[in-house]
Amino acid sequence: MTIIHVLFLFSLLSSIPHYSYASVNDFCVADLKAGDTNNTFKAALTSAFVTDFPAVNGLGVSAARLDIAKGGSIPMHTHPGATELLIMVEGEITAGFMTPFALYSKTLKPGDVFVFPQGQLHYQVNSGKKKATAFLAFSSANPGAQLLDLLLFGNALSSDIVAQTTFLDIDQVKKLKARFGGKNLSKHMSM
Amino acid sequence: MTIIHVLFLFSLLSSIPHYSYASVNDFCVADLKAGDTNNTFKAALTSAFVTDFPAVNGLGVSAARLDIAKGGSIPMHTHPGATELLIMVEGEITAGFMTPFALYSKTLKPGDVFVFPQGQLHYQVNSGKKKATAFLAFSSANPGAQLLDLLLFGNALSSDIVAQTTFLDIDQVKKLKARFGGKNLSKHMSM
Amino acid sequence: MTIIHVLFLFSLLSSIPHYSYASVNDFCVADLKAGDTNNTFKAALTSAFVTDFPAVNGLGVSAARLDIAKGGSIPMHTHPGATELLIMVEGEITAGFMTPFALYSKTLKPGDVFVFPQGQLHYQVNSGKKKATAFLAFSSANPGAQLLDLLLFGNALSSDIVAQTTFLDIDQVKKLKARFGGKNLSKHMSM
Amino acid sequence: MTIIHVLFLFSLLSSIPHYSYASVNDFCVADLKAGDTNNTFKAALTSAFVTDFPAVNGLGVSAARLDIAKGGSIPMHTHPGATELLIMVEGEITAGFMTPFALYSKTLKPGDVFVFPQGQLHYQVNSGKKKATAFLAFSSANPGAQLLDLLLFGNALSSDIVAQTTFLDIDQVKKLKARFGGKNLSKHMSM
Amino acid sequence: MTIIHVLFLFSLLSSIPHYSYASVNDFCVADLKAGDTNNTFKAALTSAFVTDFPAVNGLGVSAARLDIAKGGSIPMHTHPGATELLIMVEGEITAGFMTPFALYSKTLKPGDVFVFPQGQLHYQVNSGKKKATAFLAFSSANPGAQLLDLLLFGNALSSDIVAQTTFLDIDQVKKLKARFGGKNLSKHMSM
Amino acid sequence: MTIIHVLFLFSLLSSIPHYSYASVNDFCVADLKAGDTNNTFKAALTSAFVTDFPAVNGLGVSAARLDIAKGGSIPMHTHPGATELLIMVEGEITAGFMTPFALYSKTLKPGDVFVFPQGQLHYQVNSGKKKATAFLAFSSANPGAQLLDLLLFGNALSSDIVAQTTFLDIDQVKKLKARFGGKNLSKHMSM
Repeated sequence: MTIIHVLFLFSLLSSIPHYSYASVNDFCVADLKAGDTNNTFKAALTSAFVTDFPAVNGLGVSAARLDIAKGGSIPMHTHPGATELLIMVEGEITAGFMTPFALYSKTLKPGDVFVFPQGQLHYQVNSGKKKATAFLAFSSANPGAQLLDLLLFGNALSSDIVAQTTFLDIDQVKKLKARFGGKNLSKHMSM
Repeated sequence: MTIIHVLFLFSLLSSIPHYSYASVNDFCVADLKAGDTNNTFKAALTSAFVTDFPAVNGLGVSAARLDIAKGGSIPMHTHPGATELLIMVEGEITAGFMTPFALYSKTLKPGDVFVFPQGQLHYQVNSGKKKATAFLAFSSANPGAQLLDLLLFGNALSSDIVAQTTFLDIDQVKKLKARFGGKNLSKHMSM
Repeated sequence: MTIIHVLFLFSLLSSIPHYSYASVNDFCVADLKAGDTNNTFKAALTSAFVTDFPAVNGLGVSAARLDIAKGGSIPMHTHPGATELLIMVEGEITAGFMTPFALYSKTLKPGDVFVFPQGQLHYQVNSGKKKATAFLAFSSANPGAQLLDLLLFGNALSSDIVAQTTFLDIDQVKKLKARFGGKNLSKHMSM
Repeated sequence: MTIIHVLFLFSLLSSIPHYSYASVNDFCVADLKAGDTNNTFKAALTSAFVTDFPAVNGLGVSAARLDIAKGGSIPMHTHPGATELLIMVEGEITAGFMTPFALYSKTLKPGDVFVFPQGQLHYQVNSGKKKATAFLAFSSANPGAQLLDLLLFGNALSSDIVAQTTFLDIDQVKKLKARFGGKNLSKHMSM
Repeated sequence: MTIIHVLFLFSLLSSIPHYSYASVNDFCVADLKAGDTNNTFKAALTSAFVTDFPAVNGLGVSAARLDIAKGGSIPMHTHPGATELLIMVEGEITAGFMTPFALYSKTLKPGDVFVFPQGQLHYQVNSGKKKATAFLAFSSANPGAQLLDLLLFGNALSSDIVAQTTFLDIDQVKKLKARFGGKNLSKHMSM
Repeated sequence: MTIIHVLFLFSLLSSIPHYSYASVNDFCVADLKAGDTNNTFKAALTSAFVTDFPAVNGLGVSAARLDIAKGGSIPMHTHPGATELLIMVEGEITAGFMTPFALYSKTLKPGDVFVFPQGQLHYQVNSGKKKATAFLAFSSANPGAQLLDLLLFGNALSSDIVAQTTFLDIDQVKKLKARFGGKNLSKHMSM
């Protein structure tokens, strides 16, 4: 009888921070199926970030699945907002991150775990003879992912500025701008 | 010539927070091999926490591998210091966490991702017909893991206090204390 | 004359983070009167969490009052989101928290302070001959409070799963589910 | 038999962050006895900060006891590192904090809770007819406490600078420097 | 052809946390022009806090420009929410912060950097023979700035309470309340 | 007389978090003199990070001075651990950061403030007709600074991997490796 009062009291107190009770069925489980690697990189990144998996909102963690076909790679990129943990599941990946004078790289087999500290430029290359699969965990619900080629060549940054600030030859810059489409797609603040 | 000066300047500035350059070969890669499930729970948790994988120190993320044989389970437990993300790799696991009046559970297939918010009591049961494997990611380098049976029955807490504060029958408490060995192993502050 | 300008400038700059100026009278003071202990636990927890005391919003601290009548107790519970500090005011309480192989408990007199680290399972028992009162402080505005019996027996989790993941006898589980009402109250994701 | 293996595994994983197992008896319980109010302020602050109560180290919370005799007060002060929560236990205190153009004050009775946001200048005055007692909780293990008079008059800051930067009359400054002893006690960086 | 797919995938993933793409021109650049020092303090603080420079929202940093004419000063004040870094650009400023028994002060020349830890009472005086300019950086987008005179004399706090809690003479208090206008401007909670 | 007791009590409580009282003269003031721009970049970055300015330890903020001679630039780089605020003092700098499909750039005049969010690739070019000077503030005591050319070409990363993961021509890679000295300077984990 009087237990009702206390139960009610505890139920009022019992909050799960950052967790919506509504429509749990819809967002509490993400599905990391194999991605389609039939593209220029022969690779696919299937994400369960907060943008596509709201259940991790505010919880400081997210995940993704990485598939790389034979001969493929995930090009140089950074995650400005999170450290990445790579857990090898199948095949072989050579991964690494760099500091100005040092390289940290390793050929990974199933069961291996590799750490890419937050904001470091890094890459993953399928160095085996068949497709490779890994799971990625991030220290943020919203790690972001920025491909170096798109940063340098995929926006309105002028070829001259790119050449001056990277020491790449101007012809090389123009060639890659043509490939990655950096023309009139961006918002230029000084306009 | 003068480039040396600037390179040197940048190399001084180029620090990777929380990352020791010494003996990277020794600790930068963890190995999450399949655990031995030949035990009472028919389950094994192989961890890459900061305690056994120093590379994640200060980076706010860690991982583990979960193997559960047919008929096995990871009993009720909590991670006081981290949210857990479960990524299914093989087999079938029914997992869930509870709030006082609600249950969040799901039968998971390979590719599914499930979230257990920080500090919530939860469980994982192999509900399939063969062994199950999953990878776990945590929002902390040091998530901790506390098995409910060990908390209640594995230390010096008296059977009377357990019974009074859980509403379990005293015989049930004594039976489980006998099983989980809660006798003279603990430090009792009031001594 | 010109002082006006500077005063105005400073008043613009003078913000109190996380603090609404509107209707301060209404929410800036909470009232922690003695709770009604006429219930099954002979205990009451009166809270000043952010849910009932908005003034602590964003400030990382909250409080509660604990009253336990003679013979009463606050059963095993956790606060997933905060460390708890207990300050004894009147009477005698025996409190403790457990780790898998160790117990930290103490019989507390007025003036004593005890710490329960975030997410740890703990209890408080009136071990004296009259009513006991304590104040609680939490390291979060929204600590949450989850009673173990309600987590295990107060929702739709099946008796079989509870028995399998706690090693309790199935009869014991059913008996407590009957007492704590775990039937059709919850949302079950696998429906 | 094989349960040993898993128990051992869980015990390895079961860490309580920021909590030393050694000599728990010595530091896990603080004692907040009534302070001696036989002084110029007719008031005493007895603290359980991390400096005198190591158990709160890293846990983001601490406590103190406040005793103010009839006619006494805790003069204007700040806690640079924490929000303060005041819980009235006995007697009557008028407390307040100020912003440049607004005052938030209240006469508090037993059971009332008042919040002083981090870094705000505030005061507590016994406005009743007998002694007053309150407990304080802080959102940090190391809140600090700085008395305004000691900041302005208790160190080597010259009377001229104090007068120029507070608009107090030079005679008033010298009178209070004499009282609070600001002479040769401090380290002056420009020496 | 198929590169489109991957580019699109990366563009979805490429988020800049806390950064609105809309109307970048309007808020991404703040303008810290010299402030007007023709006032009672002979000083001006021009801020780029989140309140007037939304681009820093959520980024944990902000800035301001400090101009002090010959003979002027920024009176005693605190920033409850941030550490301040002062970078001298022109002229000479003597700055300091105090603890109860110690003073940390220094006469600063162009190029010097001085640190005022969060919440500490501090001041800046033009100790040179011409105008002085400095830039300030803060460890928060919303540092706040509270002038001591306005806290003590600019609101509805009664002269009696000010005198009792500061040990200032009542005449001194009334004189400064008259100057800083502390009369009926504030919200008094006990009304 | 008895004031001693209370003063002593307050002095015990009066801690400045993260601030050593010892040898304040030695480390409390940093000196950001103009850097020597007589190098390949015609630019210099003079830092007051925690590594060379210990006073900011634990305070979440640091600073630097940026000097760029006519025609010079700070090449593409990132700060993995901090948001950067640029405050223009003299001359003209065109600065920008990029996302995969957008560019945020601006030509800055004295008084302008520009924000580079944490971990974003960015650059600064002297676009004026004389030398340019700016002050930088960072949201961390240890922001780090990593020059893209050194990451790609200054370590032991093989030219093949660089070409595969950046889509640069192999000749371009070899040319820049020769310039930035990426040969046998690094630790290679797979050795």
